[in-house]
Amino acid sequence: MIIVIKNNTDKAQVDNLIDWVKSQGLSVNVSVGQEQTVLGLIGDVSSIDIDLVRGLSVVENVMRISEPYKNANRKFHPDDTIVEVENATVGGKDFAIIAGPCSVESKEQICEIAIAVKQAGATMLRGGAFKPRTSPYDFQGLRGDGIELLLEAKKLTGLPIVTEIMDLSQLELFNDVDVVQVGARNMQNMELLKALGRTKKPVLLKRGLSSTLKELLMSAEYIMAGGNGNVILCERGIRTFETATRNTLDISAVPALKEFTHLPVIVDPSHASGIARYVAPLTYTAAAAGAHGVMIEVHNNPSAALCDGAQSLTPDEFAEVVTKTNAVLEALK
Amino acid sequence: MIIVIKNNTDKAQVDNLIDWVKSQGLSVNVSVGQEQTVLGLIGDVSSIDIDLVRGLSVVENVMRISEPYKNANRKFHPDDTIVEVENATVGGKDFAIIAGPCSVESKEQICEIAIAVKQAGATMLRGGAFKPRTSPYDFQGLRGDGIELLLEAKKLTGLPIVTEIMDLSQLELFNDVDVVQVGARNMQNMELLKALGRTKKPVLLKRGLSSTLKELLMSAEYIMAGGNGNVILCERGIRTFETATRNTLDISAVPALKEFTHLPVIVDPSHASGIARYVAPLTYTAAAAGAHGVMIEVHNNPSAALCDGAQSLTPDEFAEVVTKTNAVLEALK
Amino acid sequence: MIIVIKNNTDKAQVDNLIDWVKSQGLSVNVSVGQEQTVLGLIGDVSSIDIDLVRGLSVVENVMRISEPYKNANRKFHPDDTIVEVENATVGGKDFAIIAGPCSVESKEQICEIAIAVKQAGATMLRGGAFKPRTSPYDFQGLRGDGIELLLEAKKLTGLPIVTEIMDLSQLELFNDVDVVQVGARNMQNMELLKALGRTKKPVLLKRGLSSTLKELLMSAEYIMAGGNGNVILCERGIRTFETATRNTLDISAVPALKEFTHLPVIVDPSHASGIARYVAPLTYTAAAAGAHGVMIEVHNNPSAALCDGAQSLTPDEFAEVVTKTNAVLEALK
Amino acid sequence: MIIVIKNNTDKAQVDNLIDWVKSQGLSVNVSVGQEQTVLGLIGDVSSIDIDLVRGLSVVENVMRISEPYKNANRKFHPDDTIVEVENATVGGKDFAIIAGPCSVESKEQICEIAIAVKQAGATMLRGGAFKPRTSPYDFQGLRGDGIELLLEAKKLTGLPIVTEIMDLSQLELFNDVDVVQVGARNMQNMELLKALGRTKKPVLLKRGLSSTLKELLMSAEYIMAGGNGNVILCERGIRTFETATRNTLDISAVPALKEFTHLPVIVDPSHASGIARYVAPLTYTAAAAGAHGVMIEVHNNPSAALCDGAQSLTPDEFAEVVTKTNAVLEALK
Repeated sequence: MIIVIKNNTDKAQVDNLIDWVKSQGLSVNVSVGQEQTVLGLIGDVSSIDIDLVRGLSVVENVMRISEPYKNANRKFHPDDTIVEVENATVGGKDFAIIAGPCSVESKEQICEIAIAVKQAGATMLRGGAFKPRTSPYDFQGLRGDGIELLLEAKKLTGLPIVTEIMDLSQLELFNDVDVVQVGARNMQNMELLKALGRTKKPVLLKRGLSSTLKELLMSAEYIMAGGNGNVILCERGIRTFETATRNTLDISAVPALKEFTHLPVIVDPSHASGIARYVAPLTYTAAAAGAHGVMIEVHNNPSAALCDGAQSLTPDEFAEVVTKTNAVLEALK
Repeated sequence: MIIVIKNNTDKAQVDNLIDWVKSQGLSVNVSVGQEQTVLGLIGDVSSIDIDLVRGLSVVENVMRISEPYKNANRKFHPDDTIVEVENATVGGKDFAIIAGPCSVESKEQICEIAIAVKQAGATMLRGGAFKPRTSPYDFQGLRGDGIELLLEAKKLTGLPIVTEIMDLSQLELFNDVDVVQVGARNMQNMELLKALGRTKKPVLLKRGLSSTLKELLMSAEYIMAGGNGNVILCERGIRTFETATRNTLDISAVPALKEFTHLPVIVDPSHASGIARYVAPLTYTAAAAGAHGVMIEVHNNPSAALCDGAQSLTPDEFAEVVTKTNAVLEALK
Repeated sequence: MIIVIKNNTDKAQVDNLIDWVKSQGLSVNVSVGQEQTVLGLIGDVSSIDIDLVRGLSVVENVMRISEPYKNANRKFHPDDTIVEVENATVGGKDFAIIAGPCSVESKEQICEIAIAVKQAGATMLRGGAFKPRTSPYDFQGLRGDGIELLLEAKKLTGLPIVTEIMDLSQLELFNDVDVVQVGARNMQNMELLKALGRTKKPVLLKRGLSSTLKELLMSAEYIMAGGNGNVILCERGIRTFETATRNTLDISAVPALKEFTHLPVIVDPSHASGIARYVAPLTYTAAAAGAHGVMIEVHNNPSAALCDGAQSLTPDEFAEVVTKTNAVLEALK
Repeated sequence: MIIVIKNNTDKAQVDNLIDWVKSQGLSVNVSVGQEQTVLGLIGDVSSIDIDLVRGLSVVENVMRISEPYKNANRKFHPDDTIVEVENATVGGKDFAIIAGPCSVESKEQICEIAIAVKQAGATMLRGGAFKPRTSPYDFQGLRGDGIELLLEAKKLTGLPIVTEIMDLSQLELFNDVDVVQVGARNMQNMELLKALGRTKKPVLLKRGLSSTLKELLMSAEYIMAGGNGNVILCERGIRTFETATRNTLDISAVPALKEFTHLPVIVDPSHASGIARYVAPLTYTAAAAGAHGVMIEVHNNPSAALCDGAQSLTPDEFAEVVTKTNAVLEALK
């Protein structure tokens, strides 16, 4: 970390800052220039809060040289991490296709969709049991019963299941879930991340609505610091001023994350746009950008399941998307 | 809610949508124009997800006529809510001044600051026991012990205490806490909000980093729907492209929220800017905008507590801020 | 346009608003509901400023039913516009590849690059003559002389040329330029747009850094209202909170714009990311999303032209990108 | 400027970068650490494009030590600049109050408003002659005739006049205008800024919708580099995700700009919110934050001038705002 000191700062204040840095177990290289004094911090600076340093009255500017994430950092782990989920994998050369309904509604519904998406080429089944709704008056999901239904669909099709946890008190209901999803709203629920770090379960960590890639990696670090390296990152759109789509898919996040980390990176085109007719082109962009997979909403009954209609594909539409996605992947091999 | 149907939409699809709306217990007023068909939904539409409707292939545009929050809505509760916290109040005519350190560190520290801020005019004491840190390698707070120390400072000074909860599993440790703070990262932790709704404890709800005012009000609604109307809203800066300050204080949120809701609205200038030397002017803007109070970080030992130095005032600086804030309030009476 | 009136509004104020609407040559359909009064405006509302109406004290909410852009609107012109540029075309089935250096520096430089990009498959040559620099101390481009050099490169290779105009006073220097580029900073330079509307020259209109897609279309409308329908839209990244890339490429803008308008839509991956090593994957995403082309920076001398090095490809890298892009296009046919 | 080189970079590439830096007339201090090599650039780095350097493949990170703006920088000009506009001043201790209608419409209108705002305490008169409208179908202003009417109102009241220029071709019409306003959309119209730099006219420079404070200062630098130091900066709201107000007033910009620069800083609460009923509180926040003035829209005929109604005050409302603003200023003296 490099700290540039303001012009005309009292030597006593600079010394005070240097003493504090040393008290954190770091050493300091002081370089006094004509115009400015620059401090170079040497040692493990990962616990130094850069915003805090930037806010100090004597500090002109501050810059990290090394990233504050270690376990997630590609520098220290050059090879791609491949997360194994039963018979499926995420990361490396394979392209994971996770598909299923927004909400689990009934045994018939989830089983019918599971069979359809498997046939079309999905590698895992997703479905919401606990639902994060912005309104307290909305349907909050089947909760524990929804997980039971997912497990039935798994038994039927062999597809590993992915479903979202909303609070660490729910953790024991997730014993048989293959991949625990942490939603965008919970990306910085540190207590939950720590609890997941103590399990060995694969975690699908979604990027927060206004989280930088560095913050996403720090959240992954929370899980990994506890000993669980099975983290899958998911770009699902960020909040911007544009309202033509629900969120703005940050497709550059794919090559950027692949540079920063060895963890697998997937894309959720359904939530990124909120519009079913954009899901197909956005899925192709995920493949084109080099993502390790996608997560797509599929519903089975357009006339009844209006809820799903907004951002979900029918099984037939999904099957076509899978075919074309594979063609794009093949073209770029 | 008004739904504008796309040009040239199949009548069957429109009928399908109308049927779905009716199945939600609503009635529909259909107006067929030369260019466009418009549906007016009549009844309690608060459980309709507007993003979902907007994403439907037959929908051109959609607009709410009434807000989806009821309990928090000023339309149905024209009078200001005044939250009573022991001998203090938030809302109405009084201006609450909540002050204290970023983190509770020791008995000496918290008691010394409590005495100083009380003398300067603070009406409540704040201090972090559980700390939400972006890095797993940072100090995570004294946790339960920190709450004990806050209670000692309360005994000494009579100031009610405000401290942040990070997970609902911590709730029973908060029995004697006067105001439970929900941080920006947890604004949409729905399970936590529901749990707080089942208590009668005053809740200080901070706006999420990228949450709209309507979303903040929906989170308040989660708490209020459970029967707890003691909610204090807190503007603490939003994330924008500007990096000169840590966040961008959205000062217009104060008059806007006061129009939308009867709940009290306070401002946190310390976290909004992340820079101690901007805390004074931003506190004056909070008073000038009509806020019901402020929450300010104060530290006691600038040489040791470097951490606090970034965005915290010394007790002397704080005392001057209180004096000038009162002058602004007086000027605008 | 639908205007929802606030609860409990004075009838006189509503009548005043209705009179004003009528004075704009529109008729009004008034629907008085139990809770709210709703006005439906009938006629050509394209000159009504929606922000203005929204700000009125009696207005609860307002929504457009029809878009304020007419000439650019796909509803009224369902077929794709194909812009013809000498022997090249943009729009429809073809994929335009516009390539060249950031700045025109010398005859040797621009001719060498022109030959290389033509060989690799480029359909047009780009190069900056007038440069919009954020610092007044930066190189401001060769200006008129740069255009002369581009014309020499065109003579040599037959590639039509694209270069940026910065002020309408420069317009006559652009007589022989094939496509006039309007940069992101000038997207709402209305006087310039009007002047370009009076020519018949193809215009490549870049999206402003913080412009919505609707605003981009309104800027296209400015040009088209003058009688010039040869407008090419260009997504080049928007400003968000994320700093890992210079801007955030909004790849969803491609399917969204193609739905809203018949004008061709291209992508500039070089400026969107500002990072050369992301240009290849982002170009593939443009093809995957259905764009009508890309504009890519290519430099010829990595050791000397450090300036170009940041976001530019070498001719060899560019040739590989073209090959793979064609493979993606083929895969999705 | 400090450049951190990526781990494991080829020495030849680093040497190449060093050679380029030297070719820009700078010297380089190379510090080879255990983990990373760091270059310190010495000399006038204001012409180095930091985004360009950041995008280089060998660069890990880069940070400016000194700002790229010189003339606008408070470091080199510690005393406040006071811009003199006839009998009025902006900057230093005085608080400028610029008021007037959105658009100049007629002699009667502008004169009536001018008299009213002068009586209420305005120090300058504003009014739009050239109007930047997002729709080509909207009223584009009275243009040259509007300036004539403003000059008549000036003759009548003695108030200096402020009006917006939209293109440098209009410059000679502004000969008698006291303060030339550059709108948010033109903040980076570099050709216009350069032309204004060659005059000595006071320029009111509005912050672009998505411009950082550093970019605003670079635009001021464009004007100042030409020899015109009479620049007034204006915060008028930035674009964010929040839609409750038209823009988000960045009130922290006031203390931040006052730290960065010696130029006067004013606030435009009318455009920041777009809502008349928020103009009063936001004006008080401008005074509370330490701004050197405000610019407020005032209209005279609420029933006819519906256009102005949205974000404009009546003369009576304006008079009350001036009185209370003065009380806030007095309270903070």
